[in-house]
Amino acid sequence: MSVIEISDGDDERLADYMRLRDVNLRKRLETEHGLFMAEGEKVIRRALRAGYLPRSLLLTRRRIATLGDVVEAVDAPTYLVTEETARRTVGFDLHRGALASFHRRALPDVVTVLRGARNVVVLEDVVDHTNVGAIFRSAAGLGVDAVVLAPRCADPLYRRAVKVSMGAVFTLPYARLTDWYAGLRTLREQGFTLLALTPDPTAPTLGRSLATAGPDNRHALLLGTEGDGLSSRWLSWADVCVRIPMAQREVDSLNVTAAAAIACYELAQAGG
Amino acid sequence: MSVIEISDGDDERLADYMRLRDVNLRKRLETEHGLFMAEGEKVIRRALRAGYLPRSLLLTRRRIATLGDVVEAVDAPTYLVTEETARRTVGFDLHRGALASFHRRALPDVVTVLRGARNVVVLEDVVDHTNVGAIFRSAAGLGVDAVVLAPRCADPLYRRAVKVSMGAVFTLPYARLTDWYAGLRTLREQGFTLLALTPDPTAPTLGRSLATAGPDNRHALLLGTEGDGLSSRWLSWADVCVRIPMAQREVDSLNVTAAAAIACYELAQAGG
Repeated sequence: MSVIEISDGDDERLADYMRLRDVNLRKRLETEHGLFMAEGEKVIRRALRAGYLPRSLLLTRRRIATLGDVVEAVDAPTYLVTEETARRTVGFDLHRGALASFHRRALPDVVTVLRGARNVVVLEDVVDHTNVGAIFRSAAGLGVDAVVLAPRCADPLYRRAVKVSMGAVFTLPYARLTDWYAGLRTLREQGFTLLALTPDPTAPTLGRSLATAGPDNRHALLLGTEGDGLSSRWLSWADVCVRIPMAQREVDSLNVTAAAAIACYELAQAGG
Repeated sequence: MSVIEISDGDDERLADYMRLRDVNLRKRLETEHGLFMAEGEKVIRRALRAGYLPRSLLLTRRRIATLGDVVEAVDAPTYLVTEETARRTVGFDLHRGALASFHRRALPDVVTVLRGARNVVVLEDVVDHTNVGAIFRSAAGLGVDAVVLAPRCADPLYRRAVKVSMGAVFTLPYARLTDWYAGLRTLREQGFTLLALTPDPTAPTLGRSLATAGPDNRHALLLGTEGDGLSSRWLSWADVCVRIPMAQREVDSLNVTAAAAIACYELAQAGG
C-alpha cells in the first residue's frame, strides 16, 4: 500500500534484505524471522498467486511501474531505493530491481503431502540450493505431485532455490522428514514403491522397472546427495534400485538435476 | 617435472592463474594465450588422459602427494604455493588445492565432428558456462556423439564449464559454426534431421517424432538460449519442432539443461 523512500542502506526497515549473498547470515536471519526472499517480477507475482503474504517489497525506481498493481494491492510497505542503496543493502547489483520479503508458512506434514499423490520425489541431503530449485522446476513441470525432503536437504525457499525453480517451490507441495533414519517408513506405509536411483551399472533400468510396475503403482523416486548419491541406509529402504542407462564413455554418471529430470520424465511417460 | 616453490602471489610465473573469477579478464587472457584451466585432481587427470598438454600446475602442499605421479610425469613446471598465496593469485579459497593450465588445441571443423556421428546436439547461444558444462556431461553420458556450437555459445573450455562437465568437454568432440545465419545448412548437407526443441504446446512430442523417424536417421537436436529459446532463424531451419510434454501446472517450461538431458535420453532410447 504505502511507498516509502529510503536513502540509507543501513535503515533498519531494510533489515530483511541485508547481505543476500552471505549464506550463513541469511539462513539464520530467515529462520529466526520466518521469512523468505523472492527476486524479480515474475517470481514475486508467483509467490503472491500462491497465497504467500508479503512483509515488504524493495524496488528501485525503474521497477516501480512494472509492479505498480502489486504495490497497490498488497498490505505491506514498498521501500523505494536507489540502485546504489540497494547495492549497499543486499551486497550486489540488483539488476532485476525487485525484491520481496514474504512470511513463511508452516510446512504440511509428510502424510498430508502424500495424500492423493501418485508420483513423488524424495531428496536425501541435496545441499546445493541451485540443484534443489532445478529439481523442483523439473518435477513440477513434468507432473510430479509432491517432494519430500530429508532433514538435511537444502531449503527450497532459500532465494537461490526460489529463483532457479522459477517459483515452482510455491506450487509444488513439499514436506520435510524429521527422521532421516526411519522416515522412509512413512512412504512405505502410504503404499509407495520406493525407487532408488543409482549409477550402479548392474541395476535394472528405470524404464524397464516402470514398464513392469503396472499403471496403478505409486512411486517415490529417491535421489541422493550431489557427491556420493544415496546413503546405504536409504538404499536399504528401497524396493528396487534403478539406473539411467549410460553410454560406455568416461562419463559414468549424470549430475543430480539431469538424473532427476530424466527420472521425472520417465515417471510421467509411465503414468500417461 | 620440476617443482618450484613460489611465495609471492604476484610472481609472473603464476600469470596463468590470475583472478579466476574475473570472467572478462579470464576470457581475454585465455584467448590471447591459448590456454584453459582445469581444477581438481579428477579433472586434471582427465585432461591429461585426453591428450591435452599442460603449461604448468599450481598445487598447495596438501595436494602434492595425491598428484605426485602427475607432477613426475608431465613436461611442465609445478608451482607449489601456500593456501594464502593461492588465494591471493586466484582470488578465492582453493579448496581443491589443485589447478592446471593447459594448452588449447585447434578445434576440428564442423564436418569433421559430424563424420560418423549419429546423434548430435547443437547449441545456439547458450551463454551460461554452467549450462554448457552440464549439457556436455549429459550428452556424453547418454551417448550423443558430438556437439556443435553457434558462434556466440559460451566456451566449453572455460573453467566453470570444464568443472561442471566433469571433464566431458575433453572427450566429447565439438566444433563451432562460423556462420550463425546459414551454418545449419552444413548439418542438413551431412544428412542430419534437424529437431528443434520448443516449449510450444502444439508441437508433436519428441518421443513420438523419434518413434516415427525410423532407426537409421541421424538427428541433430537444436537447443536455444536460456531465456528466449531458439531464434526464429534457427527454427526456420528445423525439419521438425518437438516438445517435451509438460504437466498442466504454472511451470510451463524446463531449464535448458533439464530439457537437454531428457532429449539426449530420448535420442539414446530411440537409437537403442
